[in-house]
Amino acid sequence: MLKFDEIIQFKDKGNDLLTVGELLIDMISAEYEDNFECHTYQKFFGGSPSNIAMNVKKLGIHSLVASAVGEDGLGKFLITQLEQAGIDTSYVQSVDYSTSMVVVTKSTSTPIPIFYRGADYHLAYTPKLEDALRNSKIVHFSCWPISMEPVRQTIEKVLAEARKNDILVCFDPNYHPMIWQKGEEGVEYVKTIIGKVDIVKPSEDDAERLFGKDTHENQIEKFLNLGAKLVIMTLGKEGAIVSNGIETMRLDTLATEVVDTTGAGDAFWSGFYTAVVKGYTIKEAVRLGFAVSAYKLKYTGAVVNLPRLEVIKEMYGLQEV
Amino acid sequence: MLKFDEIIQFKDKGNDLLTVGELLIDMISAEYEDNFECHTYQKFFGGSPSNIAMNVKKLGIHSLVASAVGEDGLGKFLITQLEQAGIDTSYVQSVDYSTSMVVVTKSTSTPIPIFYRGADYHLAYTPKLEDALRNSKIVHFSCWPISMEPVRQTIEKVLAEARKNDILVCFDPNYHPMIWQKGEEGVEYVKTIIGKVDIVKPSEDDAERLFGKDTHENQIEKFLNLGAKLVIMTLGKEGAIVSNGIETMRLDTLATEVVDTTGAGDAFWSGFYTAVVKGYTIKEAVRLGFAVSAYKLKYTGAVVNLPRLEVIKEMYGLQEV
Repeated sequence: MLKFDEIIQFKDKGNDLLTVGELLIDMISAEYEDNFECHTYQKFFGGSPSNIAMNVKKLGIHSLVASAVGEDGLGKFLITQLEQAGIDTSYVQSVDYSTSMVVVTKSTSTPIPIFYRGADYHLAYTPKLEDALRNSKIVHFSCWPISMEPVRQTIEKVLAEARKNDILVCFDPNYHPMIWQKGEEGVEYVKTIIGKVDIVKPSEDDAERLFGKDTHENQIEKFLNLGAKLVIMTLGKEGAIVSNGIETMRLDTLATEVVDTTGAGDAFWSGFYTAVVKGYTIKEAVRLGFAVSAYKLKYTGAVVNLPRLEVIKEMYGLQEV
Repeated sequence: MLKFDEIIQFKDKGNDLLTVGELLIDMISAEYEDNFECHTYQKFFGGSPSNIAMNVKKLGIHSLVASAVGEDGLGKFLITQLEQAGIDTSYVQSVDYSTSMVVVTKSTSTPIPIFYRGADYHLAYTPKLEDALRNSKIVHFSCWPISMEPVRQTIEKVLAEARKNDILVCFDPNYHPMIWQKGEEGVEYVKTIIGKVDIVKPSEDDAERLFGKDTHENQIEKFLNLGAKLVIMTLGKEGAIVSNGIETMRLDTLATEVVDTTGAGDAFWSGFYTAVVKGYTIKEAVRLGFAVSAYKLKYTGAVVNLPRLEVIKEMYGLQEV
């Protein structure tokens, strides 16, 4: 259990956060077009593990990214972008599959992304990846790398090794059937993973996809019953509910101005991780996470030019934390 | 053997040409960019089977396309484009894989395409496809649908059924290791296919990828020895050499103005097919094929607004054929 007033005592490690998973090209239509007649698309750097790694670096801690890209021009582009953000790219594997891509054609209704997965799910568990893991305080991943073989085996090994080394394991249970491998219903597998991690941050939709419709309190209970030690359930404009099974707190959103919601969840994780590494309590870290998320919401793009955590803390009047 | 002065006697069929294979999105960068920093891409309808089917319709014969697209917006876009070109789309299968895509980032050197294959290689051999085949005079395919399972099995069945029904089988031996399924060296398999078809149209590069460097005459000999009945070897600006093993002819290019070479090979096939269906001899059909190709070279795009075959015949002074 992770108590709200607890300060997580990390072992002395060379790196703070290791994110593991998808590194992607996002190919997004320039216009809104309901019939896919749209001609022009724009290519963006994408993938939440890298977004989080870049964010925490700006906020003030160290990060590494373990991902796989193709031995192709788009893979080189992604690596170059990481380098330009000051991230050590030696844990990015180049594999003989096309760099993964998501095509999003903007629509007046909810756009349905089209997934082109290649390199991302061929991330191997290598001695190098194991070194990075052992040398990190926190490891983070989402449903992407558990959704397909063989990268799922990599995550299973990461989980086992993290447990042996007292590494904090955080998981984004963003399950969606569209990313799942054919012929497998992913929900049950995601539940087994929830039982092996410390912290989860589901949205209402994530919870509903995993457990069906229910009250927020019941949904949180289900995550805890599966074995998660801390559940941070985000409710969009309604803020969030956080629980460890004994203590529960409700947070209002800190966002005053919402320009673009892309990457808001990753911004939360980024603020939270930076705060726990910097020695804030769990409760403080959650609030700082939502402050970073609120800051991000004011700007367009998945990764925005975040100031250091202390600046955001002041901006959002969290001096008392 | 197909003699140069032979007029192919087709059975009376409802359809002239059936093309089988890839229907694709081509995502092409708007700018030339050697480091893949290019931001903007443009989406195009692509895939040589459909290009040929659309061309022959303009030139004056009937065509059908058997392809598979994803159950997604890009698949719908491709189907709509075919419908707008007046092609019967009832032989386009919608399957539970993403619509196949090729990303091309223009470069000052030769651009290296990145392949995202999904739906295209899941084309199934269905009773409907068999009906279309039996009802056609000619069937055409390239290396795309033989490069991967399971669609390769569909082509094997098409070949067997075509043989039983005296359908002319034409094959574009455009072998390239980049499109081939992992772990298989495709050259030997392509050679077995060459032995099962009537007409092949290799370029110099195609021949070199299959047989290594050699003289044009030797390369043609190799295709004939494998079992092809007619070999049309294209030499770019140098024209072409055509041989059935007994007769050989050399053709100079008819192109006077080259604006864009995209789709020039498909334009040749289109003119050739239209001519043989219209009752021209093999020799005449080859010349008409190169006339259509020369016409296409004057315009930008894979599929241009071709006039009827007779108009092109006159334009290129082929009245004597």
